[in-house]
Amino acid sequence: MNRTRFDSWPCSVARSVDLVGDCWSPLILREAFYGERRFEGFLASLGLGRNVLAERLARLTEGGLLKRVPYTERPPRFEYRLTPMGKDFFPVMMALMQWGDTWLSKGKGAPIEVVDRTSGAVVSARVVDARSGKLLTLREVRARPGPGFPKKYKTAKVLARFRVRG
Amino acid sequence: MNRTRFDSWPCSVARSVDLVGDCWSPLILREAFYGERRFEGFLASLGLGRNVLAERLARLTEGGLLKRVPYTERPPRFEYRLTPMGKDFFPVMMALMQWGDTWLSKGKGAPIEVVDRTSGAVVSARVVDARSGKLLTLREVRARPGPGFPKKYKTAKVLARFRVRG
Repeated sequence: MNRTRFDSWPCSVARSVDLVGDCWSPLILREAFYGERRFEGFLASLGLGRNVLAERLARLTEGGLLKRVPYTERPPRFEYRLTPMGKDFFPVMMALMQWGDTWLSKGKGAPIEVVDRTSGAVVSARVVDARSGKLLTLREVRARPGPGFPKKYKTAKVLARFRVRG
Repeated sequence: MNRTRFDSWPCSVARSVDLVGDCWSPLILREAFYGERRFEGFLASLGLGRNVLAERLARLTEGGLLKRVPYTERPPRFEYRLTPMGKDFFPVMMALMQWGDTWLSKGKGAPIEVVDRTSGAVVSARVVDARSGKLLTLREVRARPGPGFPKKYKTAKVLARFRVRG
């Protein structure tokens, strides 16, 4: 792809964006979460070009979020199923959807509701700290280099940046 | 911008993607969450082109995530501060970062850790249902048109799609 690559940046946001940071990938994943698996199905729902869809499906497959599974042998046809890595993107999608519901609905309410299959109750996403269960807010946290931060990036300049923000 | 617009789609994922679904916007927001406010600062951290940065900052400002605030009058200079809408994107970013930590760290651990300012404990994001506190998983939910779903889209074909997946 003809753009800056982020997959080797020491940042999980950059690495994630490298895989899904374009306008179509999140929508393809949304369709997959709705149950879509077939090329023609994605095409019909999203109305994008065949080339673009093929390129994005290949990228999501190569990146590990989807896997290609044959569903007929003659003619050979494949469908795209979510892998565990792909399914684990669902909470991120829910957080994004919730943010859109809050800020981009123009007071009309959520266009799509997500409900509990058993109880039918509307669910809405909240991002909390895994251990304390507290809502994660910008005000209460700070960032620092973690165990996976490459030594070569640990320059005084980079480290200062984290100190300053502390 | 020369691409499909999603801001009028009846879907909060599409509307969100319309604003931040490119490779640079999430990284510009990441920098803003780290405390960056100045054009030259974003430029130095991200190493992107001036034109691209100016275009993305304008889009995020127009979209309501950032606001332009003058910090000197002579010469006139502006900085970019997060609005409440922009700050509310932080949990989405944390969920994305957590997903990247889990799936894209190649076993090396998180490149960046986020810690509680008071206790210093490492925090990690978990997306739960706001009411029940239960982890949101794909298996336990289904989608349906909500109060903000436009009547004109309520065709038999569209509604069937939600019924089938139920």
